[in-house]
Amino acid sequence: MSGSLVVVGLGPGAEAQMTPQALAAVEAADELFGYGPYLARAPERDGQIRHASDNREELDRATLALQRAVAGARVAVVSGGDAGVFAMAAAVCEAMEKGPENFRAVDFSVVPGVTAMLAVAARVGAPLGHDFCAISLSDNLKPWPLLEKRLKAAAEAGFVIALYNPISKARPWQLGAAFELLRTVLPVSVPVIFGRAAGRADERITFATLGEADAGIADMATCVIIGSAETRTIARPGLEPLVYSPRSAR
Amino acid sequence: MSGSLVVVGLGPGAEAQMTPQALAAVEAADELFGYGPYLARAPERDGQIRHASDNREELDRATLALQRAVAGARVAVVSGGDAGVFAMAAAVCEAMEKGPENFRAVDFSVVPGVTAMLAVAARVGAPLGHDFCAISLSDNLKPWPLLEKRLKAAAEAGFVIALYNPISKARPWQLGAAFELLRTVLPVSVPVIFGRAAGRADERITFATLGEADAGIADMATCVIIGSAETRTIARPGLEPLVYSPRSAR
Repeated sequence: MSGSLVVVGLGPGAEAQMTPQALAAVEAADELFGYGPYLARAPERDGQIRHASDNREELDRATLALQRAVAGARVAVVSGGDAGVFAMAAAVCEAMEKGPENFRAVDFSVVPGVTAMLAVAARVGAPLGHDFCAISLSDNLKPWPLLEKRLKAAAEAGFVIALYNPISKARPWQLGAAFELLRTVLPVSVPVIFGRAAGRADERITFATLGEADAGIADMATCVIIGSAETRTIARPGLEPLVYSPRSAR
Repeated sequence: MSGSLVVVGLGPGAEAQMTPQALAAVEAADELFGYGPYLARAPERDGQIRHASDNREELDRATLALQRAVAGARVAVVSGGDAGVFAMAAAVCEAMEKGPENFRAVDFSVVPGVTAMLAVAARVGAPLGHDFCAISLSDNLKPWPLLEKRLKAAAEAGFVIALYNPISKARPWQLGAAFELLRTVLPVSVPVIFGRAAGRADERITFATLGEADAGIADMATCVIIGSAETRTIARPGLEPLVYSPRSAR
């Protein structure tokens, strides 16, 4: 029997934002691997084995999943959002490259999903309406000076910036430092959106400007979108404001 | 009767990659607006009016859609991929800002979708596995020197680059010029992926290196992903290569 491994993006959280392809991939699996809260989103199936893990052991989890596929299991590795954006697909590819030759012979595929920044952007208008970038603010796997370089380059070149993994217990100061740095490049009036758990029951969307943005608003489940100098806020009487980045620029 | 307007991202093309939320939003509409090929993807419903348009008249289409919502219709404006990434959500926001006051009182929402770069990335591994940016290469709405500045800044700072709208009959030379510029900044060994119509029947995925990348491979329906200096290609005997960008960097 020949196994397989699929890395599945479950979307931002709401069931209606998970694609039929993702649902089918999860349902077809013999064994599911993933961070506990993501596994909890996949519908239960009799006889299916679930390997829940901490969200920091990504390479170990990827290796174990590949070993199970080599042994003949149909394996699904689940990620929140999209599988390829700061998620498990890169970790599995890394394990395939570093591991034994039979890892590279595994029937391997990736199912994309709606990544967090798209769900947050949809909730507030179209802040990603022109050129933008996505940066993981975690300096566990890359040095902080490289993050500073990327933030500065992106802001100076007029990209809207979406920040993933903005803050955690072990990384309490990085988001505040990022705001400080961006205030030296961008107008303080630039819109900032803190999008927590977009589309889920515990959703919380907070609007701010770069000048007043408080890193304490964010938690691990927050995606922070920082506009460019072109990004605009539309006031609407009795309604939430809209934030959008115009398609045209000078 | 109070109307509404929803901008819907239909995903990259395959039906299994459209979210249930997008399908429901399209089915609930009285009137659909959009570029003809996108409208063709939405299931037909009796009594539903369809306004197909050229893909260049975005602001006019947005204004007409808002007028219909003000008149009481439940309107859906459809986009391929995600609604907020180089698509109709920003055009509708712009029309709301520039238009009469009653445009800003419309019940307005956006339904996100799987945008093209995520679908292309999933097909080849995890090229967007670390910090990345998305750039529309169209200089219809922004000057070419600004695009050069963004391409250079992104490559120098180590972002993977996803290019939307890489080429058209009216813009035949820009993608070649972008490759030329990037060759002055990045190693010629950097992987380049031409992802055309990912997930559709007429899909075509082409692997190249930056040194040999030929702009002629791309067409309007292609998303081009250009790796960073860290992006790696894994050869697999008898299988397509995998391309991924490692989570860690120095």
